[in-house]
Amino acid sequence: MEIVNLNFSVNTISKSLNDITNEVYDYVGKSKITNGLCTLFIKHTSASLVIQENADPAVLRDIESFFTKLVSEDTKLYEHNYEGSDDMPAHIRSLLTNTNLSIPIINSKLDLGTWQGIYLYEHRSHGHKRQVTINICGK
Amino acid sequence: MEIVNLNFSVNTISKSLNDITNEVYDYVGKSKITNGLCTLFIKHTSASLVIQENADPAVLRDIESFFTKLVSEDTKLYEHNYEGSDDMPAHIRSLLTNTNLSIPIINSKLDLGTWQGIYLYEHRSHGHKRQVTINICGK
Amino acid sequence: MEIVNLNFSVNTISKSLNDITNEVYDYVGKSKITNGLCTLFIKHTSASLVIQENADPAVLRDIESFFTKLVSEDTKLYEHNYEGSDDMPAHIRSLLTNTNLSIPIINSKLDLGTWQGIYLYEHRSHGHKRQVTINICGK
Repeated sequence: MEIVNLNFSVNTISKSLNDITNEVYDYVGKSKITNGLCTLFIKHTSASLVIQENADPAVLRDIESFFTKLVSEDTKLYEHNYEGSDDMPAHIRSLLTNTNLSIPIINSKLDLGTWQGIYLYEHRSHGHKRQVTINICGK
Repeated sequence: MEIVNLNFSVNTISKSLNDITNEVYDYVGKSKITNGLCTLFIKHTSASLVIQENADPAVLRDIESFFTKLVSEDTKLYEHNYEGSDDMPAHIRSLLTNTNLSIPIINSKLDLGTWQGIYLYEHRSHGHKRQVTINICGK
Repeated sequence: MEIVNLNFSVNTISKSLNDITNEVYDYVGKSKITNGLCTLFIKHTSASLVIQENADPAVLRDIESFFTKLVSEDTKLYEHNYEGSDDMPAHIRSLLTNTNLSIPIINSKLDLGTWQGIYLYEHRSHGHKRQVTINICGK
């Protein structure tokens, strides 16, 4: 039984779901673990991790459109506006999605469904270099 | 220290929270692990996993009512409408809830609170056969 | 490889994010595990766990303000009102945030980002004694 933690970074595009599925597959492959669990953790509170449909890019645009409406950028609504109108909404969007994800590993592969991809969701108006830790536990 | 992954399927009822607590208890019991962690992962992006109150079924109806209002089925709001008006809302509801859950195992039992049940939340207008992977890690 | 579960309780302040970062750090330190994963699980469905910005307390007030607007306390909207107007909204807020969190442990420390704190989010109108289980797995 082994457990390993690795850090990697992702250069994001603003307000969009950045596909990191292949990077996570690569780390799982290199770990030599055949049966276990892969946990991802993002070290930020204005970007998050989600699993979503990977077939039609319109799904990702519709998600961003939904969050734009749900979480207003009207600064009058917030006390915390240090970094601009997208600052506090980014924290709220992060809260409504996930800081961590856990995905089983079976036969040395992530046990994702056919239409599932792993995304780093950038909630700020500018792209950032985001830090993610991957924890792989298993045999 | 052992780690095991098992797949099981759940036949869901449309737009409702389907109780899977007993099935998860059974898998934990059969694993013979007395102290550890149980992680559930759903292999879909239009159904999700949640832990909610198991005492009053009205809680589950109120949750569905909340999501019906929060995530509109007006197809004019979405680009992605291939599979009908419930398609994109199901992806968004899935995003706002969970694709995975982790629950401690103590004395061979899930360490749930008194009023907690585990539910597979079907977000589509029709029931489906949904695939779940259960990862059990411990001693 | 070790895996341990411990229970602890938190006395919360109503409708606020209660910082539990130091308590979690202490449990990780006492576990003597240098590299692994820490999973927190809350045994309630009207309070939840979140990771959020720990620098400006206004962020936490803005989050509470957002949820107050998003999840109405109008009892006419709900069937389940046994325990008052904050009862069903607390279940919904819990659903929109997290019942469990997983954070990597590296060099005997939680691998949180610089601005990340761990919070127990009390959604009821009165403070409660809340039960949390911490699972620590690693070497």
